[in-house]
Amino acid sequence: MSRSNTVFIGKKPSMSYVVACMTLFTSSNEVVVKARGRAISKAVDVVEIIRNRFMPDVKVSDIKIGTEEVKSEGAEEPPTNVSTIEIRLTR
Amino acid sequence: MSRSNTVFIGKKPSMSYVVACMTLFTSSNEVVVKARGRAISKAVDVVEIIRNRFMPDVKVSDIKIGTEEVKSEGAEEPPTNVSTIEIRLTR
Repeated sequence: MSRSNTVFIGKKPSMSYVVACMTLFTSSNEVVVKARGRAISKAVDVVEIIRNRFMPDVKVSDIKIGTEEVKSEGAEEPPTNVSTIEIRLTR
Repeated sequence: MSRSNTVFIGKKPSMSYVVACMTLFTSSNEVVVKARGRAISKAVDVVEIIRNRFMPDVKVSDIKIGTEEVKSEGAEEPPTNVSTIEIRLTR
């Protein structure tokens, strides 16, 4: 399969996402790691752990950064911007 | 000048680094933003603020991620790994 599989980085420990990516790699040659805001640092950690410790054959084929507008739950406050990252891994 | 100029992202507010980059752009067509660990998220913020608010003509020409070994100050503890990012901006 060459379907693109995405892992969204959140508040769990890095190793949870490392395992999620490695599981996806069992059925795909491409995995995309996405994160927003403070989780961006963790996304880079996850990719580096995969490459250095577990799957040295995995390559970073593309990195994109961007901005998303986030509307606050309540009321009148203006939307705020949050940075995003998308790291594409292939092997 | 086409000399490469580097801004290291640290603990100051993002806007300090935005100003630092914009100052470098007055004398260069290329600025490299570097960060380690938790500052990686801030590096992406800095680049996005520059592009969206101040210098829409600036392009991200390359993004590299990596790992550095950091030796702890004291004694016997083993070195730990820290993730790094390097974002190259041109205009």
